[in-house]
Amino acid sequence: MLTVHGMADSGNCYKVKLALEQLSLPCRWVEVSTTKGETRSKEFLARNPNGQVPTLELEDGSFLPESGAILAYLAEGTPLMPAGRLERARVLQWMFFEQYSHEPCVAVARAILRYQPPDSPRRAELPRLQERGRKALGVMEQHLQNSDFFAGARYSIADIALYAYTHCAADGGFELARYPAVVAWLARVRAQPRHVPLG
Amino acid sequence: MLTVHGMADSGNCYKVKLALEQLSLPCRWVEVSTTKGETRSKEFLARNPNGQVPTLELEDGSFLPESGAILAYLAEGTPLMPAGRLERARVLQWMFFEQYSHEPCVAVARAILRYQPPDSPRRAELPRLQERGRKALGVMEQHLQNSDFFAGARYSIADIALYAYTHCAADGGFELARYPAVVAWLARVRAQPRHVPLG
Repeated sequence: MLTVHGMADSGNCYKVKLALEQLSLPCRWVEVSTTKGETRSKEFLARNPNGQVPTLELEDGSFLPESGAILAYLAEGTPLMPAGRLERARVLQWMFFEQYSHEPCVAVARAILRYQPPDSPRRAELPRLQERGRKALGVMEQHLQNSDFFAGARYSIADIALYAYTHCAADGGFELARYPAVVAWLARVRAQPRHVPLG
Repeated sequence: MLTVHGMADSGNCYKVKLALEQLSLPCRWVEVSTTKGETRSKEFLARNPNGQVPTLELEDGSFLPESGAILAYLAEGTPLMPAGRLERARVLQWMFFEQYSHEPCVAVARAILRYQPPDSPRRAELPRLQERGRKALGVMEQHLQNSDFFAGARYSIADIALYAYTHCAADGGFELARYPAVVAWLARVRAQPRHVPLG
């Protein structure tokens, strides 16, 4: 059986939880708290030297880090990953967009507001993170005005990747109502079979 | 013929240039300067609403952004991308690592030192960027102590992705001599057939 080393409140870990559920793949979940420093322990670093969750433990005992790589591994050969060369590249395009242009601002703004004390000096980062996050949400809004899902007409791991931190973007101080096509897409994602919430 | 919209001095664009050369794929190169704001023009944003290079223009006139997605698209079915499910996930693991944990510090430190004036307030970001960049180089060093290349025994697009900003990390103030396994790997990458330099 697969084992997920993850933190339940992390959007990156939620991506893996949601994909496993929608693929009807049973798994064991080992809770690892990043806020308590558990990803910096010697034991955890032996599993993933980069010290991040999620890390997937495969049946053979090897470890696969990086939510994007885990999603691609789980979805290969299933309806969550298209078969065509360009369609596959479109899925990856949006997954790289998420990790480079979306998560580092939308998720980090959420983490500061959710896990840091109100007087944390890290609050000074919020205006810049929110400006960049609004840009990413604007790129998504533009795309979704002409497309039901991110990689063409069908729900895929690109949607799972972008849903994870977009649906809770209000936690980071973002006003989702400004992005009506994004709000409509969030509802389409929630309506997929076997959808489960964050947490 | 494929068209690359890119900036010659950008490591992200260099990845695409190197892959095209090693796959013997002819292309047209359209130079787009990020430092002159050319990625913010209305014309460019119609090609890539996220305003980034590289953006690949396909034969059918459509556009594919994100260096990682472009590399995966070009390498599909070639020796630069393995066929096995786990090996493919390992390639993506290191490509996501590069875009999330390496490029945003190693490449950004280089960009500040290379394109910003000596009195730029952005220089204040350097200590933090260099600390995080050293961590990424340390993760690479540890992996390469037991492996010739990033995704197993063979050169792949994971090596191309990580070579781009690692080989010029000195530009960002990093001392590569501290990472002997990385230095040896850089030489193995340079020794690959049809290797071309940045620029």
